Amino acid sequence: MKAIVNVFLKPGVLDSQGKAVHHALSSLHFENVKDVRVGKQIVLQLDEENIEKAKKDVETMCEELLANTVIEDYTIEIEK
Amino acid sequence: MKAIVNVFLKPGVLDSQGKAVHHALSSLHFENVKDVRVGKQIVLQLDEENIEKAKKDVETMCEELLANTVIEDYTIEIEK
Repeated sequence: MKAIVNVFLKPGVLDSQGKAVHHALSSLHFENVKDVRVGKQIVLQLDEENIEKAKKDVETMCEELLANTVIEDYTIEIEK
Repeated sequence: MKAIVNVFLKPGVLDSQGKAVHHALSSLHFENVKDVRVGKQIVLQLDEENIEKAKKDVETMCEELLANTVIEDYTIEIEK
């Protein structure tokens, strides 16, 4: 089973990496870009058959390690 | 229009960040994790109505800036 975790800075938290990418794109004359946010995508291969159990495990991983929940939000997708 | 770009190291390229996360998860007793890959997710807000044009633009951005195509693959999703 595969779990896809996306970790992003919360809205309102300055995303300096996103700002840098936005600036670089503007320098390359991509004028139609209005905003850029950069986050992490973590793909986990799990040895687990139960979807509910997998989701709960991955939630715990996010809370304990993968995301800094003070400044970051996360989403979890589970794929068979 | 929103474009979501996922950038990942190609299969076979050592993902040291993924290995570090995997190791840390093992230390936290998440034994059912078999593999971890860490990539970047870049979310672009585009001022563009034409989906085809948006996709082409984002492809060019990936080739020129967002991905290092020697060692990285990327996927693009366009959302209205």
